[in-house]
Amino acid sequence: MKRLIYPSPVEISKALERPSAGIGDIDIIVKEVLARVRAEGDVALREFSLKFDGFAPASFKVEESSFQEAEKHVPEKIRDAMRAALASITAFHTAQLQEPETVETTKGVKCWSRDLAIEKVGLYIPGGTAPLFSTLLMLAIPARLAGCRDIILCTPPGKDGKINPLILYTASLCGVTAIYTIGGAQAIAAMAYGTESIPAVCKIFGPGNRYVTRAKELVQLEGIAIDMPAGPSELLVIADESANPSFVAADLISQAEHGTDSQVIMLTDSRAMMEKVQREVEEQVMKIGRSDIAGKSLANSSLILLPDLDECIRVSNLYAPEHLIIATYNPYIHASAVVNAGSVFLGNYSSESTGDYMTGPNHTLPTSGYARSWSGLTTNSFRKRVFFQEVTARGLRVIGPATELLAGAEMLEGHRNAVSVRLKYLNDEQN
Amino acid sequence: MKRLIYPSPVEISKALERPSAGIGDIDIIVKEVLARVRAEGDVALREFSLKFDGFAPASFKVEESSFQEAEKHVPEKIRDAMRAALASITAFHTAQLQEPETVETTKGVKCWSRDLAIEKVGLYIPGGTAPLFSTLLMLAIPARLAGCRDIILCTPPGKDGKINPLILYTASLCGVTAIYTIGGAQAIAAMAYGTESIPAVCKIFGPGNRYVTRAKELVQLEGIAIDMPAGPSELLVIADESANPSFVAADLISQAEHGTDSQVIMLTDSRAMMEKVQREVEEQVMKIGRSDIAGKSLANSSLILLPDLDECIRVSNLYAPEHLIIATYNPYIHASAVVNAGSVFLGNYSSESTGDYMTGPNHTLPTSGYARSWSGLTTNSFRKRVFFQEVTARGLRVIGPATELLAGAEMLEGHRNAVSVRLKYLNDEQN
Repeated sequence: MKRLIYPSPVEISKALERPSAGIGDIDIIVKEVLARVRAEGDVALREFSLKFDGFAPASFKVEESSFQEAEKHVPEKIRDAMRAALASITAFHTAQLQEPETVETTKGVKCWSRDLAIEKVGLYIPGGTAPLFSTLLMLAIPARLAGCRDIILCTPPGKDGKINPLILYTASLCGVTAIYTIGGAQAIAAMAYGTESIPAVCKIFGPGNRYVTRAKELVQLEGIAIDMPAGPSELLVIADESANPSFVAADLISQAEHGTDSQVIMLTDSRAMMEKVQREVEEQVMKIGRSDIAGKSLANSSLILLPDLDECIRVSNLYAPEHLIIATYNPYIHASAVVNAGSVFLGNYSSESTGDYMTGPNHTLPTSGYARSWSGLTTNSFRKRVFFQEVTARGLRVIGPATELLAGAEMLEGHRNAVSVRLKYLNDEQN
Repeated sequence: MKRLIYPSPVEISKALERPSAGIGDIDIIVKEVLARVRAEGDVALREFSLKFDGFAPASFKVEESSFQEAEKHVPEKIRDAMRAALASITAFHTAQLQEPETVETTKGVKCWSRDLAIEKVGLYIPGGTAPLFSTLLMLAIPARLAGCRDIILCTPPGKDGKINPLILYTASLCGVTAIYTIGGAQAIAAMAYGTESIPAVCKIFGPGNRYVTRAKELVQLEGIAIDMPAGPSELLVIADESANPSFVAADLISQAEHGTDSQVIMLTDSRAMMEKVQREVEEQVMKIGRSDIAGKSLANSSLILLPDLDECIRVSNLYAPEHLIIATYNPYIHASAVVNAGSVFLGNYSSESTGDYMTGPNHTLPTSGYARSWSGLTTNSFRKRVFFQEVTARGLRVIGPATELLAGAEMLEGHRNAVSVRLKYLNDEQN
């Protein structure tokens, strides 16, 4: 890790730069995939699946029997741990189901809202070595709580041509309504446009490689909603001398192991802490299986010594980290000054990894500084708010004349007239 | 308007098709504007402003004195009506500021959320004949209620080179922090990237022509948040024989006058009502100033006779209208069956135009079927939710082992280790 001792603003900006991945020729490939799946449906799906992922199942849809079998292949201990995660995540996401406002804004003008489920949602879980069942928990639980009618999952199979039993078990645990063995940009295309075997959805959620991410961005331009823009994972730790250097180092490494483009940053007001953490990182990183990956992303990452903790918070807000650990004497004081962050962990025992599985809040969070304007996923990410209003005759007598005036000032006569015909009717009736 | 009598599903689909506007060569122009404003700042802004809008002010920023002058140019009656609108909109949007959840998901694991203001937001209001101050009310009021620090407005001037006093007065009424005389895609570029005179913002709101809309879509691909995808305005009315045909016709015309690409649809179970509304539309449309525009969009629009009101609601949910008026004997029953809509108006006296100005809910709403997955604007559109969690030593003893198991199952050793080092420390401490 790089060390910066009381850096200048320019040096800070440079250290906070995110590793960038160009679009390159991804766009050409993804656009072709989208266009062809749209035009040709399953035929194109099969072709791209064979070409990019090396498989093309007879049927994309996973049979009901595979769901039931999956449980047998998941050790009981893991099932117990998953059910514990399910309970925490459900508790937190249920609390998000608040009753929206009802307001009589004027006598006779009643206004209210209802949060209605998005009927059809599509979840994507990438393949690869690690089966990301925790992300499936984080997507499917709020989808079910929101009341989505169709919750479909697309995920590519492993080398054996089958979907990992951990994923199948999680899907059955969380109420996923259908699973399709398909990955990549072609899976996103299928969920956006629909094919003979895969239904179109209204909103697409979940992480993926650069092709998947780009496909989501491009279908969004066509009016398919997506969860949020994606980027590499990141962690910022603010630690003072009360922190435990071994814990801090373990947290930095845990985020660094996600991918070579991950970024971790420690801000501290203690030079001694900075040095201890650096030694701990060097020792601990050698002991994990993914030390190659972690080593590369740590090379992109910095330990930064700043004059005081207020300055640490200021720099953190500038960076807008996906994950923020505050390991200080009084983390509550510093947490109250947070302006931009995805998810914040307070104190020495709140490891970021507890948040990935067990604490309860969603782990699908804004990266790359998007925390300045985006939220992490909530149950409401699977719903939309609809407004309602009822204007009675009495209410119209109050707000009608002002509506006529304002519509007139905007030179929208038709808008004005829609009130005028009603007020005239009411006046005629009265006389 | 077209008339469809008990149409087949295929005929219904055809009638519900939205008028589509291709991207055409817009993309080339907008991409050049974005790239050049990003690279050259104010110089490019000035050039494009002169080229597309025919003006290039010495300074883009509007002087404080212009704010104060504006009030004088707005008649007192209009000012009173605006303040009434301000009160209703404020009441409804204040009620949206609910306290988010706090949950102890496990003993020793406390989780909560905070809704924090997006620090810098940019509002866009188009120029043209009608000064859309009502949209400025709908954007600036929730921005201020959310607590946004910088609320900037970009809007092009009229033919006299000046911004309409109605816009300036509204801006001062609602707490806009700075106004810039600039329109078009170049205004969006300025707010996305920042220039010497216009600061970059984190999220951009507001309607515009196809260049503005496309610019918003393209900067979103670069991580600048936008309010929602935009499309032409639309209204669907469900009317039974209890409706007033004159009111229904006035409502249809009021939406049709927005632009030639607007779309209005009436669904009814009463043939007599359909015929009366048609006659009323033909009469009333001749009387408004924008009858040319309204006439063209009415030609794209349909009156549809269906077997019963349940079928009307089903078709409405399929269409997912921006605005939905339910003018039936018992509108509450039908409103409870709404699945997809932006904003719903109940009963004979709730004209859609009252919602544009006076009822209280936001009038920035999802068009083009986006109501299937997008919400209208709320105060929360100007905030983002940040998650917090505190795991105590006691809490970690409970959720730590499950976290270790699940991280292990995802083959993320670093994640597991971040818990293990803490549990080991706690065990060593105990012994």
